[in-house]
Amino acid sequence: MLDSETIVALSTPQGTGAIGVIRLSGAEAFAITDKVFHGKKLSDQASHTVHYGHIVDGPQTIDEVMVALFRAPKSFTTENVVEISCHGSPFIIEQIIRLLISAGARAAKPGEFTLRAFLHGRIDLSQAEAVADLIASQSSAAHDIAMQQMRGGFAKQIRALRQELIDFAALLELELDFSEEDVEFANRQKLIALLDQTEQVILPLAESFKLGNVIKQGVNTAIVGKPNAGKSTLLNTLLNEDRAIVSSIPGTTRDTIEETININGIVFRFIDTAGLRDTTDEIEQIGVNKSYTTIEQASVLLYLTDGSQLDTPEKLQEEINRAHSFDTPHLLIINKADLLPTHINELIAATPNTLLISAKNKTGITQLREALYSLVAGSNRLEDQTIVTNLRHYQSLQNALRALRDTRAAITNQISSELAALDLRNALQALGEISGEVTNDEILGSIFSKFCIGK
Amino acid sequence: MLDSETIVALSTPQGTGAIGVIRLSGAEAFAITDKVFHGKKLSDQASHTVHYGHIVDGPQTIDEVMVALFRAPKSFTTENVVEISCHGSPFIIEQIIRLLISAGARAAKPGEFTLRAFLHGRIDLSQAEAVADLIASQSSAAHDIAMQQMRGGFAKQIRALRQELIDFAALLELELDFSEEDVEFANRQKLIALLDQTEQVILPLAESFKLGNVIKQGVNTAIVGKPNAGKSTLLNTLLNEDRAIVSSIPGTTRDTIEETININGIVFRFIDTAGLRDTTDEIEQIGVNKSYTTIEQASVLLYLTDGSQLDTPEKLQEEINRAHSFDTPHLLIINKADLLPTHINELIAATPNTLLISAKNKTGITQLREALYSLVAGSNRLEDQTIVTNLRHYQSLQNALRALRDTRAAITNQISSELAALDLRNALQALGEISGEVTNDEILGSIFSKFCIGK
Repeated sequence: MLDSETIVALSTPQGTGAIGVIRLSGAEAFAITDKVFHGKKLSDQASHTVHYGHIVDGPQTIDEVMVALFRAPKSFTTENVVEISCHGSPFIIEQIIRLLISAGARAAKPGEFTLRAFLHGRIDLSQAEAVADLIASQSSAAHDIAMQQMRGGFAKQIRALRQELIDFAALLELELDFSEEDVEFANRQKLIALLDQTEQVILPLAESFKLGNVIKQGVNTAIVGKPNAGKSTLLNTLLNEDRAIVSSIPGTTRDTIEETININGIVFRFIDTAGLRDTTDEIEQIGVNKSYTTIEQASVLLYLTDGSQLDTPEKLQEEINRAHSFDTPHLLIINKADLLPTHINELIAATPNTLLISAKNKTGITQLREALYSLVAGSNRLEDQTIVTNLRHYQSLQNALRALRDTRAAITNQISSELAALDLRNALQALGEISGEVTNDEILGSIFSKFCIGK
Repeated sequence: MLDSETIVALSTPQGTGAIGVIRLSGAEAFAITDKVFHGKKLSDQASHTVHYGHIVDGPQTIDEVMVALFRAPKSFTTENVVEISCHGSPFIIEQIIRLLISAGARAAKPGEFTLRAFLHGRIDLSQAEAVADLIASQSSAAHDIAMQQMRGGFAKQIRALRQELIDFAALLELELDFSEEDVEFANRQKLIALLDQTEQVILPLAESFKLGNVIKQGVNTAIVGKPNAGKSTLLNTLLNEDRAIVSSIPGTTRDTIEETININGIVFRFIDTAGLRDTTDEIEQIGVNKSYTTIEQASVLLYLTDGSQLDTPEKLQEEINRAHSFDTPHLLIINKADLLPTHINELIAATPNTLLISAKNKTGITQLREALYSLVAGSNRLEDQTIVTNLRHYQSLQNALRALRDTRAAITNQISSELAALDLRNALQALGEISGEVTNDEILGSIFSKFCIGK
C-alpha cells in the first residue's frame, strides 16, 4: 500500500475561511513545492521553519503564502512534509493543488497521510484509529479516551503480553517437530499463568466496550412515564441547566445537536416518547406503541412518576414495579416531590435507584445528573479506566479471549500440543490486529477509507 | 480601534477536518501560549520556527499540536503571532480557544487580524479589502483582480497623485491667509495640469467598476427567444462544454453553483426564461411576462432564433429588430445554422453581434463563448486592465471625480481660492478614503465586520 509518490491534499475543512492548509508528504515534497513557490529555495531550508513567499503559475501569482517545512523523519508521516498556508478560498486552494499535481504530486486518498505514518512505523494501528476518533470526538470523555489511545493506550500493554505469548507459541511449535519424542519445551504452568494474566488484561477491556461505545456515540436516553408526570418540564430543566454552563466563543460554536446534555463528558441524547397509559383511543395507542419502540432503542430510561398521585404505599409500589419491569438500565424518578405525602417519603428512601425531584422547582436535578452518569459510567471515574471504543478492537479482543480460553482448555485437558498451538496462533492473530502488527490490505483499506482527505 | 490585548480565533473554516489552525496576535501571544503549551518554551524560540508539543489543561492533555511562531514585526499583523495547528475537531478547537482565553487572550472580532495589519501600517485599506475579496473570489478573473489589489494595485498610483494635490491644497490655503493681498502661491497652470492628470487616472478606474462588479458577482445572463428556438439545448451545450474542462480534484471541489459557466475567468450565471411569444393563453402570458422581468435583471442577453424558420430576408430582419429592441447588451444567435437557407447566410454575415450556431451539433459554440466574453470584458485582455471591484472604492472615485471637476471649474472661472480650496479638500478626502489615509471608526467597523473571524 506504500508507494514512493508525493501526495497532496487540503488538510483543513472545506469551505471559506481566513486560511487553508495544503499538505504534501513524500520524498519530493520540497522539490515539487519549489517548482511553484516564489521565495527562498525550500530544499535548502532547515526543518521546522516557516517561509514567506508566493505560489506562482508561470508569470501569474496565485497567492501569498507561508510554507512550513518538516524534514524526514521528523514529521507526522516520517517523510518530507510541506504545509502551505494559503488564503482560505476554495478557488485558490483548488488552483494550488492543481499546480502541485502538475508539478508531480498525486492527490492523496482519505487517511493516506496517517496510513503512511502507520506503514513507516511511527504509530501503530490503534493510534492511527485514535486520530480519527479524536477528530470526531464531541465530548470530553470521547476526547480523553481517544487521546489516551493516541498516546499508546492499551495497545502497548497488549503488545508486551503478545510478545511473551509469541515466545511460548514458538516453543509449542518446536514441540510439534519433536512430537514423537514427547518432549515439553514450553513450561505448561508458566504458559497457563501467562494466559490467565493476558485474559485478566483483555477481559475488562472487552467489557469496557459497552461503556466506550456509548461514550463515543452518546447515550440514547428515554424519559418515560404516564401523561402529565412532567416529562417535558424535566427535559427542559435538564437542558437549561446544561445550556447555562455552555459559554459560546465566537467562531468555535459547534453545530447544536438538539436535546442532548453533557454530564461529565458523556453525551445523553434524549428521545421523545408519548405518555404511557392504557388507552382505548386508537390514535393515542399508536403513540404509546411508538413509545415502547423508543424504549427498546434507548440505552437508559428515566421512568418519571407524579409524586402528588402517590398517596398510598400501594400506588408507590405499583410504580416501582412498573419501573422495574424494564430490562434497560433505569432510574425511577418521583417528580413533584414537594407535593408528596410525608409517610411515602420513608418508603422511597428505602428503594434503590429512586430519586425525588421537582422538575418545576429544579430541586434534585444535580443528584439526578449524578445518578444518570453513574448508571452509565459506573462508580469509577472515567479517567481511571482504560476504555475500548472501537468496534474492531472489541471484536479482536473477543476473538483473542475465545482463543486464549481454548488454548488454556487444550493445555489443561492435555488434548494435544498441536491444538493448543493452533489456538494460541489465533489469539496472537487477534491481538496483533489491534495494534496492526498483523494486518492485511483489506483491513487497512477499510480503516483508512473512513478518514477524511488530508489526514 | 487598536488595543493592546492579544486576540485569538480559529483561522481555518469551521467544521471537521484533518487539522485546524488557531491564531493569536499581540504582545503576549508567546507568553499566553506558553501557559498552555507543553514542549519547548516558545518565548525563547526564533521567529518563523515550528515546534511540536501538547496543549494541556493542568494535568489533562487536550491535543498534540504543532506551533508556529512569528516575531513582531515580521508577521501578518506586525505583532507577535502564534499559529497552533491542532486536530481538526470542533470540540478540541473550542477547548483550546477556551484555554487560551483563560490564559489571557481575547476572542478576536471579525477581520481583527487584518484590521491590526492595517492600523499598524503594514497594508493600506484597499489591500485589506482585497484580502476579503481574494478569499471570496470564485473565478480566476475575480482572483487576479483581488491579487493585483492586494499587492498595491491602483491605490499606490492614487496615493502618489494625492500627495501632489495635498501640496497644492496647502498653497491654496496659504493664499486664504493672505487673501487681502491677492497673492497666488499655487501655480494655477500646474494645478490644472495635475487635476487633469488625476482625472485621467481616476476616470477609467471609475468606469472599470461596471466590469469589476460583474467579474466579482458573476454576470446574469438570460437566453431568450421564441419557443423551440433551442434555448435549453444551447444551455446544455454551454454547460457541458464547461463541465468537460473542469477536472475534479478530491477534497477541493467547490460547491457547485447550478447553471453557471466560466469563460476565461468570468462567471456567467444563466437565468431561466420562458419562450417569448404573443399569446392569448393567460397562464402562458404570465410566464412570458416573467421572462421580461428576468430580462430586466440580466446584464447580458442571448437572443436565440431558429434558423430553419428564417427563410426570407424579412423574417431575418424581424428577428434582428426584435433583438436590437433590448437595451441590455445582447447577441443575436441564429440556431440550427445547418438548416439555414444559403441566401440568408450572406445577410447575416453583414449584421454585427450576430452568430451562427448549431446547439445540437455543437458548432459555433467557441465563437459564441468568445463573443459573450467580449461583450462583458471588451476587447482588451483583463490582465492588462486595472479594474475596480469594490463599491466603496467606486463611490469614493465618483466623489473624487466630482470634486476634482468642481476644483477645476472654480479655478478656471476664477470664482475664489476659498471655494477651490474647499473642493480640493473634498477630492483629497475622497481619494484618501480608498487607501485608508483618511478614515474613521465607522467606515473601518463596517469594512472589517464583513470579514470572517480569524482573518
